[in-house]
Amino acid sequence: MGSEKQPSVVVIGGGTGMPVLLRGLKNLPIDLTALVTVADDGGSTGRLRDEMSIPAPGDIRNVIAALSDAEPMLLELFQHRFTVGNSLSGHSMGNLLLAAMTSVTGNFFTGIQEISRVLNVKGNIYPISNESMSLHAEMADGTIVSGESNIPLANKKVERVYLRPQPVQPLPDAVNAIQHADLIVVAPGSLYTSILPNMIIPQIDVALSNTKANVVYVCNVMTQAGETTGYTAADHVQAIRRHIGEACIDSVVVHNEPISKHVRQVYAEENATPVIYDTDRLLEMGLQIIEGDIIDPSRTTLRHDTQKIAKLLYSLIDKE
Amino acid sequence: MGSEKQPSVVVIGGGTGMPVLLRGLKNLPIDLTALVTVADDGGSTGRLRDEMSIPAPGDIRNVIAALSDAEPMLLELFQHRFTVGNSLSGHSMGNLLLAAMTSVTGNFFTGIQEISRVLNVKGNIYPISNESMSLHAEMADGTIVSGESNIPLANKKVERVYLRPQPVQPLPDAVNAIQHADLIVVAPGSLYTSILPNMIIPQIDVALSNTKANVVYVCNVMTQAGETTGYTAADHVQAIRRHIGEACIDSVVVHNEPISKHVRQVYAEENATPVIYDTDRLLEMGLQIIEGDIIDPSRTTLRHDTQKIAKLLYSLIDKE
Repeated sequence: MGSEKQPSVVVIGGGTGMPVLLRGLKNLPIDLTALVTVADDGGSTGRLRDEMSIPAPGDIRNVIAALSDAEPMLLELFQHRFTVGNSLSGHSMGNLLLAAMTSVTGNFFTGIQEISRVLNVKGNIYPISNESMSLHAEMADGTIVSGESNIPLANKKVERVYLRPQPVQPLPDAVNAIQHADLIVVAPGSLYTSILPNMIIPQIDVALSNTKANVVYVCNVMTQAGETTGYTAADHVQAIRRHIGEACIDSVVVHNEPISKHVRQVYAEENATPVIYDTDRLLEMGLQIIEGDIIDPSRTTLRHDTQKIAKLLYSLIDKE
Repeated sequence: MGSEKQPSVVVIGGGTGMPVLLRGLKNLPIDLTALVTVADDGGSTGRLRDEMSIPAPGDIRNVIAALSDAEPMLLELFQHRFTVGNSLSGHSMGNLLLAAMTSVTGNFFTGIQEISRVLNVKGNIYPISNESMSLHAEMADGTIVSGESNIPLANKKVERVYLRPQPVQPLPDAVNAIQHADLIVVAPGSLYTSILPNMIIPQIDVALSNTKANVVYVCNVMTQAGETTGYTAADHVQAIRRHIGEACIDSVVVHNEPISKHVRQVYAEENATPVIYDTDRLLEMGLQIIEGDIIDPSRTTLRHDTQKIAKLLYSLIDKE
């Protein structure tokens, strides 16, 4: 039990991919920090954001649940979604707690910290910004689609995404975490609506490009209709570079085993196909490629295997 | 630190009077149990009751807050009331937590127990029933007024109150607590809408009449418009007897100091006046009278003094 500083690992993301990564990482001897998007606007989260002018709490809620060591019943309460009650239906208890704690403490980030303390969260959870924001996309055909949840529904080729109001202020702790990280992991997830909304924020983009840490992108395993149809792994990275420049991603983690026919059939119904890992192009782009069998084969909904991916990411840390 | 059994004190009530009593009692070396009304229907509580078919959580919430040893910020969160948000405005966080925990555990009482555990509640909190119910009043003029919050608004003389559906099933633990109590305290509060809705429930009425414990009624200090206008202390007890018989109240606690002119003026605006303690009539009714200076003089809203009343009630316990 030395007093040595543990390596700092920063994970950036949102949606469903990020919690999977965090569940495995939280048990490792690292100083773990999650930087989480607050730009979503669907369902309960969107209603709270609009009615209460707070940053979107939904992705934060899922990260809290992933990093919490609280007993199962408390987490069930936290993740409970009201299904009855005219006015409450669709609201998640955790979102309401985050909204109420924001009122009580006067500050979204402080509210997150207090809820995290009560739920015995391991690691730090930073909203990428303490402000309410909205996401917009400029499509390849020049049209603009406003609202995170509307972007994939438009089913057009996305050229770029941007945030309003401009400039969005990042949480200073989030910038600082990137600057002092030993490893930065860009989580898998919806590229334009969960991942990039973090990376395009002023100061966050610069910090990602300037950090000395290895910035590792865990690439999606399947394409996503309305966002990344037909994208190869290199196309994913290229989309990020198009937004914030060449220097931001150093390495890409790719899954190196075939996806089962059954799973492909399930995803085909959503117009999603396996991401092709065009390693030659990735190498040409100057990226380090990290391959592994990192998928949980027990599920029909494809998810990274929490333990496998955590172990792989941990192996990337320079522990000198 | 012996292993002797502590005396069992059961407090019955609801509204704002009950938490005042409980705050003082919780620090005494007693086994404390609160039996709480679930018949109210105003505001957040009423909406949740109607929309989710659960017993009214509002009075339970205030009792949890009174008996909790949780840190102040958590209690502030628990008692937080949303003031913005179209769909949430007026809802109290604690009510929402109780409603959600009822869904998670499948049972209102189990939900209360789990929330109580999280908030480090001292003593037992039993809803008087695990069922949703509604309160109705038959007025002296023969009209029926339905709904707890409507009864005082009708501003008529109440003849009797009753519950629907009939028969309401009491919580078995509540009946059991009365049967095994060493002291039973009927809390001050709205006579017809907070106190009697507990006492008139089948089995609760019988248990109160048959218990060997001293049943002590802490009489209101001021009358309440639409409920007890012009009532003396004996009228309060008589109203209880009219509902559940002669044997239910053994003693009456009355405040024996005058109410200041300033406070009387404030209450006069609500058509409330000091309750006259007609001790001769109380004695004629066979009641033991316990007098004390039990009011908190520091407030314009009259409240019993938490510590004084707790001390007085504790002195009534036969500690053999």
